[in-house]
Amino acid sequence: MRFLIIGGDAAGMSAASRVRRKRPDIDVTVLEMTRDVSYSACGMPYNIADGQRSIEELVVRQASVFRDKLGVDLRLGHRAEAIDREAKLVRGSEASGQGFDCGYDKLLIATGASPHIPNIPGLDAPGVMALKNLEQGRAIKEYLASRPVKRAVILGMGYIALEMAEALRARGLEVAMVKPRPELLPWMDRQLASTVYDELQAKRVEVHAGCEVQEIRQAGGSYEAVCSDRVLSADMLLVATGVRPNSRLAEEAGLELGPAGSIAVDRSMRTSDPDILSAGDCADAFHLVSGQRTWVPLALRANRSGRAAADAVAGQPVELPGVAGTAVFKTFELQVARTGLSLDEAAQCGFDPRGRVISAPSRAHAHPGSSTIQVFLLADAASGRLLGAQMVGREGVAHRINAVAVALQAGMSLAEFAQADLAYAPPFGPVWDPLLTAANQLLKAL
Amino acid sequence: MRFLIIGGDAAGMSAASRVRRKRPDIDVTVLEMTRDVSYSACGMPYNIADGQRSIEELVVRQASVFRDKLGVDLRLGHRAEAIDREAKLVRGSEASGQGFDCGYDKLLIATGASPHIPNIPGLDAPGVMALKNLEQGRAIKEYLASRPVKRAVILGMGYIALEMAEALRARGLEVAMVKPRPELLPWMDRQLASTVYDELQAKRVEVHAGCEVQEIRQAGGSYEAVCSDRVLSADMLLVATGVRPNSRLAEEAGLELGPAGSIAVDRSMRTSDPDILSAGDCADAFHLVSGQRTWVPLALRANRSGRAAADAVAGQPVELPGVAGTAVFKTFELQVARTGLSLDEAAQCGFDPRGRVISAPSRAHAHPGSSTIQVFLLADAASGRLLGAQMVGREGVAHRINAVAVALQAGMSLAEFAQADLAYAPPFGPVWDPLLTAANQLLKAL
Repeated sequence: MRFLIIGGDAAGMSAASRVRRKRPDIDVTVLEMTRDVSYSACGMPYNIADGQRSIEELVVRQASVFRDKLGVDLRLGHRAEAIDREAKLVRGSEASGQGFDCGYDKLLIATGASPHIPNIPGLDAPGVMALKNLEQGRAIKEYLASRPVKRAVILGMGYIALEMAEALRARGLEVAMVKPRPELLPWMDRQLASTVYDELQAKRVEVHAGCEVQEIRQAGGSYEAVCSDRVLSADMLLVATGVRPNSRLAEEAGLELGPAGSIAVDRSMRTSDPDILSAGDCADAFHLVSGQRTWVPLALRANRSGRAAADAVAGQPVELPGVAGTAVFKTFELQVARTGLSLDEAAQCGFDPRGRVISAPSRAHAHPGSSTIQVFLLADAASGRLLGAQMVGREGVAHRINAVAVALQAGMSLAEFAQADLAYAPPFGPVWDPLLTAANQLLKAL
Repeated sequence: MRFLIIGGDAAGMSAASRVRRKRPDIDVTVLEMTRDVSYSACGMPYNIADGQRSIEELVVRQASVFRDKLGVDLRLGHRAEAIDREAKLVRGSEASGQGFDCGYDKLLIATGASPHIPNIPGLDAPGVMALKNLEQGRAIKEYLASRPVKRAVILGMGYIALEMAEALRARGLEVAMVKPRPELLPWMDRQLASTVYDELQAKRVEVHAGCEVQEIRQAGGSYEAVCSDRVLSADMLLVATGVRPNSRLAEEAGLELGPAGSIAVDRSMRTSDPDILSAGDCADAFHLVSGQRTWVPLALRANRSGRAAADAVAGQPVELPGVAGTAVFKTFELQVARTGLSLDEAAQCGFDPRGRVISAPSRAHAHPGSSTIQVFLLADAASGRLLGAQMVGREGVAHRINAVAVALQAGMSLAEFAQADLAYAPPFGPVWDPLLTAANQLLKAL
């Protein structure tokens, strides 16, 4: 059997390795348009923060490992351009411009996601960077190393933007962030978002929320981001206004699409064509809470769905239950985490959500070094079901959110979750874990 | 209605406050034999570690708050000595020696637990200390402050012993630990326990496991713990060989007892006498995994059961689902956590347990500052049910265990847990959380 994979990042290479391990009789070919496979994309902001480290450290496995040890036919610099479902082949071109085609019995589309570049005049200038693949990470590091860069403007304030704000401040740059909507982290409870805002202020990051950039002007070696009421100058511009699924190939081949233009797949990663699967940041998923299709481009889902696609191709299909939308990021000293639905999402899904914010100490009464954890918990007033959680704090947030993620997977009610037997010791929290305090408070409001 | 409570620690005072808040018409009297109420007992090792801090910082609420703000009739220095179930009254004596009796309509026994003092000749000497209540914590601090103490011997190697080893090393003492059984932390997987052992060695704590202390000798101002093959000298001896439930009153009153001599209660904290409840470290609980009665003297259960007893007395009984046995402690740089059943416990409960140990990095590939987390996960080969977890590591252990605790509460199978949507960001773990790696590895062994 010929198993062809388009895309050599997390999902594609997970699938390639797993199929070769489980079924050495299956021929596996991977078409990757860049020259990189198997690297930690999420590690790029932390690598960029350190001018001494090489970005090549982020490579987890060299191409040679896939080729020599696993027997994967890995073709770098190969861009797929069309899928011919009738002939069961993929057409494309190599970096040299030469065309190729490649037949398949089973095809996996693992083309990932790409930064969304807004339609702003001047955004094609050389000092305008984005960050999703290793090539772009290299370009940013080379840019910073090769010229005096004193000030950066970041378009966007999502988690990559916030991680990059920290990274660029660590490199000694002044940083200004700008976005059209007035709210910082619009999915987040306002009290928690204002804690993130305060942290940015404390770290001297300029925040220009509610400012639409209308034009990028080049002025000598630097740039000006022109808004209606202000002009932000910079030596470097980073576009971090979110990502979009790379689903054009699938769409042009007539495959069904899901939310946000992602590729619709079932719980075993099969698209609407029985011989074509999709996994990773280009594919959709089912949400554990709403049961609806959703698009959550995050690393664990990408890896997990790559493995599930491999299992399906190897003849041992598994059914993935779905995603809770669990995510965490760090910005400066703050840990920010979420799982489940936000208040707006819950209302849109037909729930009657009630939320409550509490603040609790990160360590026990009288234990030194304690800071404040804020928890926003939400539940459905009609059914009592737990719907989601958000947390912000300086410690004890990143892993604490997982208790709620598992509760959501189990479909727990808020009352059940309030009875969870969570760990306690003075260095790690109060007797009543902040999550339990939040649950007990929210129970009163239901 | 007259609600009488024996014991003014976590469970007793939680119940007293809650009943007064919910039902101001109920008279609440608390008999407490010491002079302390409402303090953070678990915080004592950390307070003792710091010679500058007063142990009084651990008091969460003063007696006056309970008396003046909540209208609780709080009687300190009152020792309960007998329960007359027919007459519905408790007899006892005050610190002065004067007798008292106190009637009740509903009685809560919240007498807690006390250190188990092994039957070793010489253990009644003045430099021999134990640590459970604030009086004992004060005595240790005063002992350390009032004389030159260079070397301590700790009898026992449970979590209080290990916390105190760290505390006494922080005060500059040499520390030797001694216990009869050869295994350190016998409930723990051997690989994980040996990591704890290595940490003690690295911090220059002498570990004498498999040594039975036969006698304590006084030699001038210091002590000798005499074993069959060695003599351990010390200026201070700490007995930390576990605790026992204070259930004598209940036993003498003819109430049913549970595991380890604890007081048997139902899910609403009622004993075998419909007018007597019990909560806190003296009472038993149902285990969420085995469904059997168990005795887990830990702070969250104590507080939660105190509240549940209050709800029952206030006429709004709740049913507590039970305990997962989740616990965490810190010893030096290590976080040690567990939840659910150990391998031996699982076998005793009739499961066919299979366990697997994995090691995983605490941070993502190439992220600086990473250390190793060890996870031991166990599941039932017959049903596939997840049974428990243990973890050791320098970071990311204390809160991570909670995901398993919630999974156990939900009765999840190992295969379900392996699909949990756990949080990922490079500073906080690898893409596949160590718990998921452990689950995937153990799935192969089932």
